[in-house]
Amino acid sequence: MRRLALIASLAATLVAGVLVNTARADEGMWTYDNFPAAKVKQRYGVNIDSAWLDRVREASVRLSGCSASFVSADGLILTNHHCITGCLAENSSKEKSLLDDGFVARDRKDETPCRTQVADVLVGMEDVTAKVEAATRGLDERAANETRKRTITALEQACEKDTGLKCQSVALYNGGQQFLYRYKRYTDVRLVFAPESGIAAFGGDPDNFQFPRWCLDMGLLRAYENGKPVKVARPLRINFDGPAPGEFVLVSGHPGSTDRLLTVAQLEAQRNDDLPQWLLRSSELRGRYIEFSKKGDAERRIVADTLFGLENGIKVRRKELDALLDEKLMAQKRADEAELRARVAKDPSLAGIGDPWADIEKATARARDFGTEYTYLEGGAGFQSRLFRIARTLVRGAAEREKPNGERLREFTDAQLPRVQQQLGAATPVYPEVERLTMSFGFERMREWLGPDHATVRQLLAKDSPDTLAAKLVDGTKLADPAVRLALWNGGSAAIAASDDPMIKLAREVDAPARALRKRYEDEVQAPTAAAEEKIARARFKVYGTEVYPDATFTLRLNYGTVQGWTERGAPVEPYTQLGRAFERATGQPPFQIPASWERVRAKLDMTTRVNLTSNNDIIGGNSGSPLLNARGEVVGLIFDGNIHSISGSYWFDAEKNRSVSVHPAFMREALRTVYDAPALLKELGYK
Amino acid sequence: MRRLALIASLAATLVAGVLVNTARADEGMWTYDNFPAAKVKQRYGVNIDSAWLDRVREASVRLSGCSASFVSADGLILTNHHCITGCLAENSSKEKSLLDDGFVARDRKDETPCRTQVADVLVGMEDVTAKVEAATRGLDERAANETRKRTITALEQACEKDTGLKCQSVALYNGGQQFLYRYKRYTDVRLVFAPESGIAAFGGDPDNFQFPRWCLDMGLLRAYENGKPVKVARPLRINFDGPAPGEFVLVSGHPGSTDRLLTVAQLEAQRNDDLPQWLLRSSELRGRYIEFSKKGDAERRIVADTLFGLENGIKVRRKELDALLDEKLMAQKRADEAELRARVAKDPSLAGIGDPWADIEKATARARDFGTEYTYLEGGAGFQSRLFRIARTLVRGAAEREKPNGERLREFTDAQLPRVQQQLGAATPVYPEVERLTMSFGFERMREWLGPDHATVRQLLAKDSPDTLAAKLVDGTKLADPAVRLALWNGGSAAIAASDDPMIKLAREVDAPARALRKRYEDEVQAPTAAAEEKIARARFKVYGTEVYPDATFTLRLNYGTVQGWTERGAPVEPYTQLGRAFERATGQPPFQIPASWERVRAKLDMTTRVNLTSNNDIIGGNSGSPLLNARGEVVGLIFDGNIHSISGSYWFDAEKNRSVSVHPAFMREALRTVYDAPALLKELGYK
Repeated sequence: MRRLALIASLAATLVAGVLVNTARADEGMWTYDNFPAAKVKQRYGVNIDSAWLDRVREASVRLSGCSASFVSADGLILTNHHCITGCLAENSSKEKSLLDDGFVARDRKDETPCRTQVADVLVGMEDVTAKVEAATRGLDERAANETRKRTITALEQACEKDTGLKCQSVALYNGGQQFLYRYKRYTDVRLVFAPESGIAAFGGDPDNFQFPRWCLDMGLLRAYENGKPVKVARPLRINFDGPAPGEFVLVSGHPGSTDRLLTVAQLEAQRNDDLPQWLLRSSELRGRYIEFSKKGDAERRIVADTLFGLENGIKVRRKELDALLDEKLMAQKRADEAELRARVAKDPSLAGIGDPWADIEKATARARDFGTEYTYLEGGAGFQSRLFRIARTLVRGAAEREKPNGERLREFTDAQLPRVQQQLGAATPVYPEVERLTMSFGFERMREWLGPDHATVRQLLAKDSPDTLAAKLVDGTKLADPAVRLALWNGGSAAIAASDDPMIKLAREVDAPARALRKRYEDEVQAPTAAAEEKIARARFKVYGTEVYPDATFTLRLNYGTVQGWTERGAPVEPYTQLGRAFERATGQPPFQIPASWERVRAKLDMTTRVNLTSNNDIIGGNSGSPLLNARGEVVGLIFDGNIHSISGSYWFDAEKNRSVSVHPAFMREALRTVYDAPALLKELGYK
Repeated sequence: MRRLALIASLAATLVAGVLVNTARADEGMWTYDNFPAAKVKQRYGVNIDSAWLDRVREASVRLSGCSASFVSADGLILTNHHCITGCLAENSSKEKSLLDDGFVARDRKDETPCRTQVADVLVGMEDVTAKVEAATRGLDERAANETRKRTITALEQACEKDTGLKCQSVALYNGGQQFLYRYKRYTDVRLVFAPESGIAAFGGDPDNFQFPRWCLDMGLLRAYENGKPVKVARPLRINFDGPAPGEFVLVSGHPGSTDRLLTVAQLEAQRNDDLPQWLLRSSELRGRYIEFSKKGDAERRIVADTLFGLENGIKVRRKELDALLDEKLMAQKRADEAELRARVAKDPSLAGIGDPWADIEKATARARDFGTEYTYLEGGAGFQSRLFRIARTLVRGAAEREKPNGERLREFTDAQLPRVQQQLGAATPVYPEVERLTMSFGFERMREWLGPDHATVRQLLAKDSPDTLAAKLVDGTKLADPAVRLALWNGGSAAIAASDDPMIKLAREVDAPARALRKRYEDEVQAPTAAAEEKIARARFKVYGTEVYPDATFTLRLNYGTVQGWTERGAPVEPYTQLGRAFERATGQPPFQIPASWERVRAKLDMTTRVNLTSNNDIIGGNSGSPLLNARGEVVGLIFDGNIHSISGSYWFDAEKNRSVSVHPAFMREALRTVYDAPALLKELGYK
């Protein structure tokens, strides 16, 4: 399951990053430089000082779409199993699946590269708001939008040159603050331990976002540098006893994205267009994958990871749609917006901002006009294929690299190129039968939603069906070979122009209309929206002051709460589960099948071992793999999911019902000790 | 495509039948006893008198889920190709598909039985409102609901005994009027002519509900009685020239169901729960069927008809959801409701009705509590299988037939039994691989939506996966054999109790919880809703008078309008298409592949032949196959679809954009003459 991993954003959804009104209860995803330590001290008597913050920050790790932490002096990284399934799939084949079988490196030399994984540690944050504002002052919306991007690119470039670190811009408070975050990046990350999916994701999709739960959703990686394990000065220590009921706990991690203060117009666009369209597409694709996976064991294996991710996304979006269809939520959003607008109207110092809510409404209406076309041609819905994405990267990368850094598409700035190249060069398996399935699906839906007479559809399918076209492309392309990809990358525009690879030709042919839609989207939707959001952010600062936290942006945040269950339809849900119940609940069939490794040692297991636990920490997708910490900064849990109510956390924090779900450290200990017989790892994790 | 065939209603949706405020423009699905002839005379100068009405009514035919008309003295029935795909599928096999190949009976003896088709002609309507009211007067909601059903059953039974006709109760104006409709029923209906799907549904799902269009969506059946073609005294005559632009036209047919005056609470329930859940389920099933159909030609053939129907349903529901998410529509609905409530509040004579809108809101809230459970266990979403439906029919039929007629479930009253038996005995093909697919799908989604710990889910899947359970059931059952089914039917309760057929056992096991949910639904949702709807209907009559038409109920209606296109995004859409464009648009690949029979005679075809046409008639699913008539009552078209805007016709009539789509008679003539070489048929259709 992806569970709380960051899921790819809705193609047509605006990038969000607005302010939250005022934090109620234990709500809040706080940046490390604005943690409400005084409030915590007052409410819980716990002292979170700057030494504490520095130490935990240095051990907090960001992976692709997930969070993690250093838990040994030799660079051992603790995260979720579902955060490393990509690595497991890369190291699997049609014949053998590390997802099915798990993986234990008995020795350092058995540790296997995760070829597309990187691990980032936040080492510095610089406020560059004034620099960006100075560059864009007095410009109109489109020019400001362009200039902002160019300025940010230049700042990142200068930072990387000066520091040798990975520098990324972060728009907090919706552009109300512009930061440059500096990361120490590790590009050699290796697989150390993964349990079988059967226990890591026990209960599978049916149990996903549910509680009680019984999942060993853990995995261990190790960061290397120059071929040697990285030395970590102050790793986090695991407290295997876990937290007491009601104990104060914190989560340090990278919440991916929240939409808590989108305007009503933006929420309605998600509810009416983006979410239903995404859900219809994805539900059909789910059906196609499931039926495909029934052809045989090899077919099941090669789509397992993708299907897990898709099903997770469907559950998330479905509950997001439910939240937006809930009149209670929308009424609250309307009331909040009306209140802010009324206060803005009364404040003479804000007279100049005009009506940014109306500006956003106009922008979302324009997005509606061509949003579906954008989603299919540029947003990825029409060309669902790894090989096509590679082709597009090669075609665009060649053209973009010929431009000055500041004028390129953001994904091809100098700061991005090493990662692009790493991914192009990684020998991850490509399965042609899966590529044909997804490409044909994309073409078929593109024809349905844009119509058979749309120029691009007509061009593609004039003499082909979606199936025959997909087969020609996938069977004819050589892009599954990393050497071919790198040759085209290094060959630049000349190599691209000379290529007769059918996938490259397709990417070339659809590039102009797709870029035109992107340009239109940036000019007509993104630019006015960014300008309006900045105005609203400024007004909000003015009216509500600074006791606020920014929407999630997949950057490091810290939040606090306590270990607790909740009340479901009048009945209390206890915050802990025990191992014995998992065995009682097993059916012998996936996804309720306990792996043989566990059944073998069943008699030796302590069935009262605490397995999973809930707390009221405010988390969201991207927080997967975050350490759950006690007041001393010890790891007392491993965040891997939220309950079903946590999904509405995209839009608000429901203090009564929103709960995060963690793996209990006692369960990790029981697994490594009794099932996987890994004393060296346990020792490295500090267990005596 | 099912297009405008009646699609199975949402399992959890309340049965609707409320009044429409006042008919605007050419809106209105009028019963034959309340046709606004004076208004038509005044507006169009056309005289639709009782002789006209009687003649057209006698030639109007109702099929299963569709409409049709008698077009020859020898019982020839004209309807849509997509209305007879069930018959084509029944007469196909894995090896040969009448859907692919079409069918022409060159001779009466070649005419092939459609084993589950019946044809009904409306011969009388009796107002029994007073009788039903007398029976239920003074009873509380639940008792009234029960008594109403019992009274209706008794009235139907007496009517059938007295007249020898098929008698069916019809609740018009939401129970404001209760009618008994009498039909002459033909049970021996045979296939005469069907073109290939390639031309009948040219453009397939991508073009469905679109216009311009190029479809020969026609089929011919013949009604037999005592082994001989039925003699029809006054069949409709086809005018092969078709209608002029702007010409006054009428549609006589059976619109299936509209929800034009559901209360706001009911519309919100559709928008928030019923439609999204149905769409998610069906989109996934669509994906499963599509992937299944790619295994080979046989697989494609055996799911083609089902897949067409499903895709049609998805398009309809999707646009219904869009309509309900359109703030303009909901604002209008809220305003209409507020106005009626205000006028009711001011009318002292209506003081006694209380607040039926609040009653409905409470009932829909209760439906929400257990609606999903109801949908899965009783509504069919959990047990998606023809064989299971047969098993349930056998299990319940045995139990119900032991009760007095008035106390049975409505689908097992004496009036229904002949049709039930006809369907059980029909040797229609059952494909085990498709059954396994749909059953496994139903079990998997049931587990997802009800949770693995739901009692019934737990009972079914304690030791099985959805796949293994589906395989055991489908491979073990003998119910694919009509003889086995009839033996169990005739054996009654003793045979059912003694059966060890796994599908019968399953139906027995889940019968108690499913019936309990049905009872709860009837008592807690249906009864109070029916009572409240009746009150609203009464109030509406009182306030707005009688110039209203009832919501569609799949009973005979007549509506009028004119031949016209519309304006789409500022550009006019012409109301006619020509044959030549279909050939230009063909890609050579389904669903844009012109059949070989047409390509062969391409040079001989008149490419200026009018193919399809639009008019502003107010139609909906169930109207498929309706004759489009001119003022003289001649057939000038064959309704087969609506444009995309027609789908919101479920909730309101959009006079500006809602258009019906017909096959032009000139296209039928060109096909029968030049392509299918069927002079005898053409002659029988009156062409000289």
